[in-house]
Amino acid sequence: MTALINRQWVMTSRPENMVSRENFTFQEVPVPELNDGEFLVKSIYMSFDPTLRAWMNERDTYVKAIAIGEVMRCNSVGEVIASKNDKFKIGDKVMGGIGWQDYCVTTGANILPFQVLPKGVPLTMPLSIFGITGLTAYFGMLEVADLKEGQTVVVSGAAGATGSVACQIAKLKGCKVIGIAGGPEKCKNLTEFFGLDHAIDYKNDNVKAKLREYCPNGVDRYFDNVGGPILDNVLDQIAMHGKVVLCGAISDYNTDNPSGPKSYTRLIVMRASMQGFIILDYAKRFPEAISALTHWVQEGKVKYQEDVQDGLENAPEAFQRIFTGKNHGKQLLKVADPTT
Amino acid sequence: MTALINRQWVMTSRPENMVSRENFTFQEVPVPELNDGEFLVKSIYMSFDPTLRAWMNERDTYVKAIAIGEVMRCNSVGEVIASKNDKFKIGDKVMGGIGWQDYCVTTGANILPFQVLPKGVPLTMPLSIFGITGLTAYFGMLEVADLKEGQTVVVSGAAGATGSVACQIAKLKGCKVIGIAGGPEKCKNLTEFFGLDHAIDYKNDNVKAKLREYCPNGVDRYFDNVGGPILDNVLDQIAMHGKVVLCGAISDYNTDNPSGPKSYTRLIVMRASMQGFIILDYAKRFPEAISALTHWVQEGKVKYQEDVQDGLENAPEAFQRIFTGKNHGKQLLKVADPTT
Repeated sequence: MTALINRQWVMTSRPENMVSRENFTFQEVPVPELNDGEFLVKSIYMSFDPTLRAWMNERDTYVKAIAIGEVMRCNSVGEVIASKNDKFKIGDKVMGGIGWQDYCVTTGANILPFQVLPKGVPLTMPLSIFGITGLTAYFGMLEVADLKEGQTVVVSGAAGATGSVACQIAKLKGCKVIGIAGGPEKCKNLTEFFGLDHAIDYKNDNVKAKLREYCPNGVDRYFDNVGGPILDNVLDQIAMHGKVVLCGAISDYNTDNPSGPKSYTRLIVMRASMQGFIILDYAKRFPEAISALTHWVQEGKVKYQEDVQDGLENAPEAFQRIFTGKNHGKQLLKVADPTT
Repeated sequence: MTALINRQWVMTSRPENMVSRENFTFQEVPVPELNDGEFLVKSIYMSFDPTLRAWMNERDTYVKAIAIGEVMRCNSVGEVIASKNDKFKIGDKVMGGIGWQDYCVTTGANILPFQVLPKGVPLTMPLSIFGITGLTAYFGMLEVADLKEGQTVVVSGAAGATGSVACQIAKLKGCKVIGIAGGPEKCKNLTEFFGLDHAIDYKNDNVKAKLREYCPNGVDRYFDNVGGPILDNVLDQIAMHGKVVLCGAISDYNTDNPSGPKSYTRLIVMRASMQGFIILDYAKRFPEAISALTHWVQEGKVKYQEDVQDGLENAPEAFQRIFTGKNHGKQLLKVADPTT
């Protein structure tokens, strides 16, 4: 057969601050022939996660940094359209590290390893509620935060893919939940659609005053997706023996001069702690989490939202949306329709 | 009898940055008559602890902030020279919150409550090795840090009263211990007198490079007394599942614009944590700690140093010494000789 043409976004420079189209080069290359053990995947949906921004920096994190000249990484859902691998058959829907391109040839082993999806699963769900974002909320809240009924829980990035699920899990566990998000529309969504007790609009409210009002006895648990000045505001209101669960620091990802939490000494005064975690450490327990989340989604106790943009050529802008707060729910990009 | 004259230092303004003589007023007042239940204590040794600096700020911490016009607080050892309280007899040596003055009249209840010392105890020891500083090292290392044999432990302010004891406890527990202190003399003392594995001179060494050299597998436990840029350097080298024990942040106490640890997101990447604590939470277990420390001191396994300045009139400068690093060991000030 004539070689397929593969459009791909290659990282050609590291962003100093906000990631942009300038950091990538769009190119077309032929898809290579398959060797034994390999299979060919066509990209259907791409997922954008904040952690990818950290992978673009020179320093290795919990995975190897993306190299200059490497196809930009992401987790995707795709379809196997050719295979010399017994475990992956033509027509299989798979999730894995396809990256920012139409096609990838792989053995299945990857920094984001490939797995076959159960038949009949809506193709966006493995990237949203059952994806890294939903699983992060699950283990972050139930394992790291170690929630107790009646606690006051604050979540930043609360309207995001991880934050919104984290908030709802805390509600399920009998906590008072306050979400922080940007803009009145997102905040209305937090209380009316996701059922939170209160929402704070960091773009328009005095966050510090609102935290005092909504958390008069202090913040027992803070699930932090953003870092920056909001982390300081919460530390100023942290409860005795409170705990900050560090999930991410999206406000710092696109700057080369992050400020650091000036109020961290409140941890001393309040005998409080700050704990980081990485979802990969819980990989063996993903089936348990997916089972619990499925149950909650079916019962209507956990809702989720997806924001699906369109077209591989728009990948850099879709990625930017999660840093500028334009996304409403999990940021995805549709690359192609499935064949089957 | 003619009323005794009491010289005292009253806090008359709050320091914005470095505490200085300007923040206090030296005055002489007559000692009042005793009411029933009260006793009169003569100050012998004053103790200077970094935490007092935080008490001078307007915001309450774990105790009520010092009020403008209040005698500056400190923990001291003194002697009961008159008493209308059955529990405190003339001649008793006591420890408690006498403050920056020659005499105090008290019922014994105080933010720093009074207790009678066992007979024969050297009068400086309850303020140094058995004082807040030694006890902080004990519980910080054994309870909060949760040390394990073979771990790599870094201590900042390592030549100080708390740090030097913390280092030695970590050595006793079979850890590799690296101390950070200012100047070659203190560093030599750390390895030669206190028996640490390595010392880093933050005034002359490249701290980051030295940490990499001495902790090639990362820092498992960091006992932090200083905050500031050194905390960032250690976070950059924190080990997987490492822990920062926040004891203090002396580098931040005398500034109104502390920077905060810019590298705190390493806690996420390394699944690490940062935990604050306050020694008062362990008050019920002080006898256990004093017993263990006594044992170690007698066996020569824990050594300590005291830096005794002289004269109540020099109190502001003696206090400054702990923030400028001039002290060698626990900073005390001798106010008077005991009567008996």
